[in-house]
Amino acid sequence: MDPITNGLMQKLAEAGQSHLLQFWKDLSHEEQADLAAELQGMDFQEINGFFKSAMETSSSSKHEKMDTRMEPVPREVLGSVTRDRECLKSWEAAGLHCISQSKVAALLLAGGQGTRLGVSYPKGMYDVGLPSHKTLFQIQAERILKLQQLAEQKHKIKCCIPWYIMTSGRTMESTKEFFSRHNYFGLDKNNVVFFQQGMLPAMDYKGKIILESKGKLSMAPDGNGGLYRALRNQGITYDMERRGIECIHVYCVDNILVKVADPAFVGFCVQKEADCGAKVVEKTNPTEAVGVVCKVDGHYQVVEYSEITLATAEKRSADGRLMFNAGNVANHFFSLSFLRDVVQKHEPRLQHHVAQKKIPYVDAQGRLIKPDKPNGIKMEKFVFDIFQFAKTFVVYEVLREDEFSPLKNADTQDGKDTPTTARHALMSLHHRWVLNAGGHFIDENGRRVPAIPSLKDGTDLPIKCEISPLVSYGGEGLEEFVKERDFHPTLMIDEHRVHELVKNGV
Amino acid sequence: MDPITNGLMQKLAEAGQSHLLQFWKDLSHEEQADLAAELQGMDFQEINGFFKSAMETSSSSKHEKMDTRMEPVPREVLGSVTRDRECLKSWEAAGLHCISQSKVAALLLAGGQGTRLGVSYPKGMYDVGLPSHKTLFQIQAERILKLQQLAEQKHKIKCCIPWYIMTSGRTMESTKEFFSRHNYFGLDKNNVVFFQQGMLPAMDYKGKIILESKGKLSMAPDGNGGLYRALRNQGITYDMERRGIECIHVYCVDNILVKVADPAFVGFCVQKEADCGAKVVEKTNPTEAVGVVCKVDGHYQVVEYSEITLATAEKRSADGRLMFNAGNVANHFFSLSFLRDVVQKHEPRLQHHVAQKKIPYVDAQGRLIKPDKPNGIKMEKFVFDIFQFAKTFVVYEVLREDEFSPLKNADTQDGKDTPTTARHALMSLHHRWVLNAGGHFIDENGRRVPAIPSLKDGTDLPIKCEISPLVSYGGEGLEEFVKERDFHPTLMIDEHRVHELVKNGV
Repeated sequence: MDPITNGLMQKLAEAGQSHLLQFWKDLSHEEQADLAAELQGMDFQEINGFFKSAMETSSSSKHEKMDTRMEPVPREVLGSVTRDRECLKSWEAAGLHCISQSKVAALLLAGGQGTRLGVSYPKGMYDVGLPSHKTLFQIQAERILKLQQLAEQKHKIKCCIPWYIMTSGRTMESTKEFFSRHNYFGLDKNNVVFFQQGMLPAMDYKGKIILESKGKLSMAPDGNGGLYRALRNQGITYDMERRGIECIHVYCVDNILVKVADPAFVGFCVQKEADCGAKVVEKTNPTEAVGVVCKVDGHYQVVEYSEITLATAEKRSADGRLMFNAGNVANHFFSLSFLRDVVQKHEPRLQHHVAQKKIPYVDAQGRLIKPDKPNGIKMEKFVFDIFQFAKTFVVYEVLREDEFSPLKNADTQDGKDTPTTARHALMSLHHRWVLNAGGHFIDENGRRVPAIPSLKDGTDLPIKCEISPLVSYGGEGLEEFVKERDFHPTLMIDEHRVHELVKNGV
Repeated sequence: MDPITNGLMQKLAEAGQSHLLQFWKDLSHEEQADLAAELQGMDFQEINGFFKSAMETSSSSKHEKMDTRMEPVPREVLGSVTRDRECLKSWEAAGLHCISQSKVAALLLAGGQGTRLGVSYPKGMYDVGLPSHKTLFQIQAERILKLQQLAEQKHKIKCCIPWYIMTSGRTMESTKEFFSRHNYFGLDKNNVVFFQQGMLPAMDYKGKIILESKGKLSMAPDGNGGLYRALRNQGITYDMERRGIECIHVYCVDNILVKVADPAFVGFCVQKEADCGAKVVEKTNPTEAVGVVCKVDGHYQVVEYSEITLATAEKRSADGRLMFNAGNVANHFFSLSFLRDVVQKHEPRLQHHVAQKKIPYVDAQGRLIKPDKPNGIKMEKFVFDIFQFAKTFVVYEVLREDEFSPLKNADTQDGKDTPTTARHALMSLHHRWVLNAGGHFIDENGRRVPAIPSLKDGTDLPIKCEISPLVSYGGEGLEEFVKERDFHPTLMIDEHRVHELVKNGV
């Protein structure tokens, strides 16, 4: 007998989603059982409500009016590594002090799959081809380890930075298995907490849930803003409380340069008594596809590049900089009390955003169709949607070349944000660390290589240089290894030794 | 009988270059005649002198000390399109007035071949793949035509912008033939003046001229600073005088966005009573491979990126900008009187720069060897080496995205400055022109496309849009064509019509 119940049929009919059963008779018993279970677990009234309000917001003319409502970030809430250099040491010390007291946690958003990157496993497991072949997860883990060590050395007290890792239904098992297989990269497994964000179905423009096969709904994670719902549903804020956490650094998995739990950022936010902070890089080209942090109707938010007219994007301040230049890099600071408020009070008020997508679907004849233009939507919340609820919001501006190089696309001609650009960004940073610590690089003839590599003669490749996070978190402590020494690239410095990989004279 | 004379043998012996005849007996009579003629025409004492002083300068420790001698461009000599917006109209009007009086000439540096670009013909003949398939030469010619027209319309007077084109021995014939075949792209051929820069031999580190085959010297153009010697040798400054020229805009062929004879730049320099000016773009990343305009020992010059230490490159002003941020884009203004002084008095004082290169050569057995590391030098002067002689030097800062996208390399993965980046830069600029003139772009569903294109879903391509320079020089005059109209890309606007190339619904 069919496992389908009248209750389920009625539930679907009431929600206008009965078409999900149209291929029921074609399914095997196992497929029927799976589908029924999935449908039983879903709250269609809620999903339909999400759809209705997301579509309403999306089709309203708010975008047209956005320009007149936007104001730039005022100087007084801005901390800048280039303009407030005299404060940097103090911010860093304040942050390191918090870390030494085990008040700081890192929270990683890692629910996405590497679809655009062309892999079927979680992005954090990606090896961009560094000399060490470390993955993004390993690099981040080692930065946490090193930062704990720095705080402990300075304050002579044992401390820990708990690491909360949000996965999704698609990445949970492989992520956990990867960490376990690698012994948590040296971290205490009790301080690595995995939790899972929710999924939502893709829908067509009429609000009908899309089937990706006869017995399977097209599901996707509910956006990085699914964080807040997941924190609540899985009691994560209680875990933070229990551990005595006061500050949380939230960031995305794909940025190879990310300064996990960055003490300067944390210290700046703490000194400013902020409940919420955003790290930004300066946007210098008006048409760069990056969201900008700004004030709208008196509240802070990220305005996405697609919402801005060119005239607004091109506006400049008297100093010649773009007026809206606080480029969002998905690096946020939250106080735990703010996060608790968000999770308990504000989260349900957050709207889903609508992303129009080309969503593969089965047609009425049961054939799989891959559309060549958008045919439906995915609904997502964004992690920065909660800025509006902050009482004291601050912005912290850092240098792109030091802190931001996201991995998004596969290596292709003219590719932006690829494994190659990520690898080059990291090696270029580490090259600069070595030079600033008094080291030098020499070529095959023993001549010193200029600090700024030439682009001529096709040698537009960075000096190959990689320094383990276990040796240096942010460039500190390298003098003892490199000062007044000459190195042939590839130079690798790890916790065991300084070594040069000389291959074919290069 | 051998055409070689005792005189030539003695000339070579005295210059230490007798090895150039080592394969004499292996050559055909024709090859012998060619070689003898080439050698007869060369001044070896002068060449040896160039080598000696170039090597001395290059090996001296001046680079080490450069950092302490550098000062940034002071604000009072700087004009900026972003920081002095209120002056722009006045500068432009002043420049256009000079143009209307036929006092402004354009001077194109086009002596290089497209070696790195992977073609054997002059770069100006390259088609980067725009919808119109116009070459760089054509784009520049049409900008000159349009600018003459704008000046004539405004000032009701017939005028002309003479175009001086410096080629080299390698590019002269093909360049002239290309212009002739294309009817000078509508320009009066009497106002297009070709002249030729000199060549110098490549030498090994001991000062011996390198043979690229048994009967042929390895020769290369003498750098874009060969301009001044060529101007003198070919009497070009007299031609300028005769035409009543007072200002010259000198630029390189490879920048697809170049504003030839830019009236705002010319007007700024004229209003400042400058004899010499440099157009720059802001350098924002310390390790970007671009030379910077600065003061050294009180004189202006371009310091090449390879001469700067990282510490200096990373220095910042109080406003957070890089202290040395005036990135040279090879766009210069000279008054004719200054140029005359340079050509008559200063040129011989200019040192050659040494570029270490991998230079193919024939070994003692007559075999062609392609070295895998540098084995010799080429000697070059740089066009900006004369800044030091200016009495009133000014700097004019423009936006990179509006004015600078050089074509240097072939399309390869991660390529910088390729046909693709040049094409995208031009289409992005024209896209912005259309938006700023009140036009819109729509997608296949008739929906307006956001001003800033998304990078997601692999659609990281600019809107395809090309506006003929014959229609608009710098974005002006487009309202009548585009205001309140919706366009499907590809949009092309030329002197005949506005048309959309709709292919496969895109």
